[in-house]
Amino acid sequence: MATGLYVGRFQPFHLGHLEAVKYILGRVDELIIVVGSAQHSHTLDNPFTAGERITMIRLALKQAGIRPDRFTVIPLPDDEFHKVWVAHLLSQTPSFDVVYTNEPLTFRLLKEAGLRVERIPMFSRKKFTSTEVRRRLLTNGPWKELVPKAVASYLKKIDGDERLRDISKSDKAG
Amino acid sequence: MATGLYVGRFQPFHLGHLEAVKYILGRVDELIIVVGSAQHSHTLDNPFTAGERITMIRLALKQAGIRPDRFTVIPLPDDEFHKVWVAHLLSQTPSFDVVYTNEPLTFRLLKEAGLRVERIPMFSRKKFTSTEVRRRLLTNGPWKELVPKAVASYLKKIDGDERLRDISKSDKAG
Amino acid sequence: MATGLYVGRFQPFHLGHLEAVKYILGRVDELIIVVGSAQHSHTLDNPFTAGERITMIRLALKQAGIRPDRFTVIPLPDDEFHKVWVAHLLSQTPSFDVVYTNEPLTFRLLKEAGLRVERIPMFSRKKFTSTEVRRRLLTNGPWKELVPKAVASYLKKIDGDERLRDISKSDKAG
Amino acid sequence: MATGLYVGRFQPFHLGHLEAVKYILGRVDELIIVVGSAQHSHTLDNPFTAGERITMIRLALKQAGIRPDRFTVIPLPDDEFHKVWVAHLLSQTPSFDVVYTNEPLTFRLLKEAGLRVERIPMFSRKKFTSTEVRRRLLTNGPWKELVPKAVASYLKKIDGDERLRDISKSDKAG
Amino acid sequence: MATGLYVGRFQPFHLGHLEAVKYILGRVDELIIVVGSAQHSHTLDNPFTAGERITMIRLALKQAGIRPDRFTVIPLPDDEFHKVWVAHLLSQTPSFDVVYTNEPLTFRLLKEAGLRVERIPMFSRKKFTSTEVRRRLLTNGPWKELVPKAVASYLKKIDGDERLRDISKSDKAG
Amino acid sequence: MATGLYVGRFQPFHLGHLEAVKYILGRVDELIIVVGSAQHSHTLDNPFTAGERITMIRLALKQAGIRPDRFTVIPLPDDEFHKVWVAHLLSQTPSFDVVYTNEPLTFRLLKEAGLRVERIPMFSRKKFTSTEVRRRLLTNGPWKELVPKAVASYLKKIDGDERLRDISKSDKAG
Repeated sequence: MATGLYVGRFQPFHLGHLEAVKYILGRVDELIIVVGSAQHSHTLDNPFTAGERITMIRLALKQAGIRPDRFTVIPLPDDEFHKVWVAHLLSQTPSFDVVYTNEPLTFRLLKEAGLRVERIPMFSRKKFTSTEVRRRLLTNGPWKELVPKAVASYLKKIDGDERLRDISKSDKAG
Repeated sequence: MATGLYVGRFQPFHLGHLEAVKYILGRVDELIIVVGSAQHSHTLDNPFTAGERITMIRLALKQAGIRPDRFTVIPLPDDEFHKVWVAHLLSQTPSFDVVYTNEPLTFRLLKEAGLRVERIPMFSRKKFTSTEVRRRLLTNGPWKELVPKAVASYLKKIDGDERLRDISKSDKAG
Repeated sequence: MATGLYVGRFQPFHLGHLEAVKYILGRVDELIIVVGSAQHSHTLDNPFTAGERITMIRLALKQAGIRPDRFTVIPLPDDEFHKVWVAHLLSQTPSFDVVYTNEPLTFRLLKEAGLRVERIPMFSRKKFTSTEVRRRLLTNGPWKELVPKAVASYLKKIDGDERLRDISKSDKAG
Repeated sequence: MATGLYVGRFQPFHLGHLEAVKYILGRVDELIIVVGSAQHSHTLDNPFTAGERITMIRLALKQAGIRPDRFTVIPLPDDEFHKVWVAHLLSQTPSFDVVYTNEPLTFRLLKEAGLRVERIPMFSRKKFTSTEVRRRLLTNGPWKELVPKAVASYLKKIDGDERLRDISKSDKAG
Repeated sequence: MATGLYVGRFQPFHLGHLEAVKYILGRVDELIIVVGSAQHSHTLDNPFTAGERITMIRLALKQAGIRPDRFTVIPLPDDEFHKVWVAHLLSQTPSFDVVYTNEPLTFRLLKEAGLRVERIPMFSRKKFTSTEVRRRLLTNGPWKELVPKAVASYLKKIDGDERLRDISKSDKAG
Repeated sequence: MATGLYVGRFQPFHLGHLEAVKYILGRVDELIIVVGSAQHSHTLDNPFTAGERITMIRLALKQAGIRPDRFTVIPLPDDEFHKVWVAHLLSQTPSFDVVYTNEPLTFRLLKEAGLRVERIPMFSRKKFTSTEVRRRLLTNGPWKELVPKAVASYLKKIDGDERLRDISKSDKAG
């Protein structure tokens, strides 16, 4: 039985992420989804807490009909030392066989540590990026079409767009 | 729908923990299990990594026939500032309605923060403590009778008893 | 008896800050002034130590004839976790009834934590900003007219302008 | 005009501390009181938050009739690096001429850094120690006679004795 | 016998650094080379680990015929508190008489702490900067002419140019 | 050419350490000596700064006639996460082939990370321990016979025994 690992910040979780999860679940039996930069929230790049991001992922995967025994979600804070991040990741997660990522630095750090790493095909990457979702949330653009319906409802419920606009007016938002 | 939260270090997860999980799941629809002191491992009090502890919990709950959509497991590092720990907990977990704990300080910190906290009945607490399991692991005592079968197999597989004995010989074991 | 709280970085303390303090003291009996980002100094955005900023505030308020039993000054380091910052603030300060701030993120974080927050009227905000004072210190502009006289003398005494110019030549000034 | 500095943890502030403050104010014009280990609270050795300790000191000094322009109170977290603590202290406090302390390590670190340090005469030190106050709070002994009246009222108001008893039952109290 | 100290990040060690080392060794008997920002690696500004940078320096100085008893190399992590950095430096290094640096902030912090600091003459500074070496590594420019031969071989061996290109594609490279 | 690594705290460096260094240099061409717990000093268990310990090692090895090109000394702070310590070690040191250690936890962590680890024969371990040297320094016992002559002179010069006695009187000495 193979276990995969998928790392992202999920700020917020969008349809491209959902496609990636489905793609990986076609290749492994079980998936560990790691919510990176878990310590951050309330900044322009990281508006949502780890708890909120875990909630989004669970709502989206439930709505997509993915069986709950096939995935688990783990928050992971950044490590100031990039070279130490892989050891940190290994200590906070159940064991796994392969990591899926397209992020070049993550890919390299995992490779340098001797792990098996594979890339994920791009699902209209141009359109489905968290950066674009955040931009539309901020500017009142059509952001709902970029995220799973369950995530759209949740973001409305927690006033995600209003939070981003408040953050954008702050000089502490870095 | 009510969500409960249960905090512990689970070093390791034993039969008393399993009873507590069943008790709480009789009162709430969904349970968030928080693996505390997640940064620690390889010490006498905290021999196992957060990843290993998450694995134990998932194996034990699966074996006990608990449906995977009824619980989720989240690792949480300690915070040097006790008074800040509750805010840290809230930022790393999905929202919940009630916390179950018998730990007096945890109980007080959550109460001071205005959260709803309830106690768990004791399940032969004398016998089923992680301290006692670690003591038996270290001294080659009958530790297997204190943990779920799935946890016993897992601890054998990762040589948990040998690890504890190595740690006990070290002056860095703190 | 009502206690107010006023948070700022005070890099440096200028006439707009002084007006804000007077405004708040017209509404509360006692004021806690929190010197934020207390760990930083010797950068372009945070040239002065917390100790120096506390000194400026005490000199300026004394010169303005504000009674010393009506205010207290507390340094507070940043918290990497924005969501945890409010709990951190509460643990380091005497209790208070209301926070005064115009900073949008601070406003939101305090509101989300359930505290009472109010805005301060703008006192020619364009002119009186710490950013503008630092810009003039750096470029040898007429910075003295933006700060209380006591602050101007103190900044001269500690060679504040020279420090900013040295920092500006550094690539560690971030 | 001479400024003195007095460092302590004040867990809690007792009559011996008050005598020390009076003694020092007989020798300097102004006193900076540093509340050390500011990050700790809710442990057996450090039950009270920095905010609570600042409150105790201000209440006790007010009651003792000490003029508010003669002292200021600054919280200071510990530094893991003992050798770096003095630099940290200097960055968080207004400038001072002399430190008063009887703590041997603090004395040595300040001396090694080239500062002027003096000892404080003992005021029935046996009796008036924070350790003894905490012991009596915990065991329901006659603790009120060891602290200023204003501190006694405050500790009752925040249920300080109950907090200590809750902490004492915890294995996280360290 | 005089001991000098020379601080740099050495990302990577280039011919200008080598000239500086020779210049200082003409003025002191022994040199402590401090590898700053030791915690960083795998970013655009800090691509190499402290261990790799120590290796470069030792290879370059050996090739340059500098006697191994005349220098020692010490890694030093940054300190978030600039004002505390000097105390941190002093605690991690053997004692020294004079620091050589051209970095304005380092110069000021050392001066403010009362240490003896001297500048180093510029050795075609325009050309020999680590920034320029990193730019050429990234863009496949003629970087080898800027570094000692031993460093060039080492950078090839660890695929330094490829690492920089991978990092440059990442949004975590900051 | 083989490179060995030897980790210790060296509080202080004693004759047993010197024998170990000689033993390892009989098996490898070059030795990296790692000064662990580098952030600590001025405690009963860690009285000396990393800089002082590096100085002791260099003085002792010079006196023992060990060629300076055969060893290098690197300070390394502890990592709160034991499981991450090996990655941290690897990032701060030049590459090596084998680690020599008798410390059971260090041995296990290095083994778990897949490194080659070997034990060092005991050189009258009972007598030559840093704990015993510190005990004798504290109690004015015959400590000089346990350390290299150069270390004895250095400890006298920095008043190492007096420092330990001051620390022992402190309740911050932990």
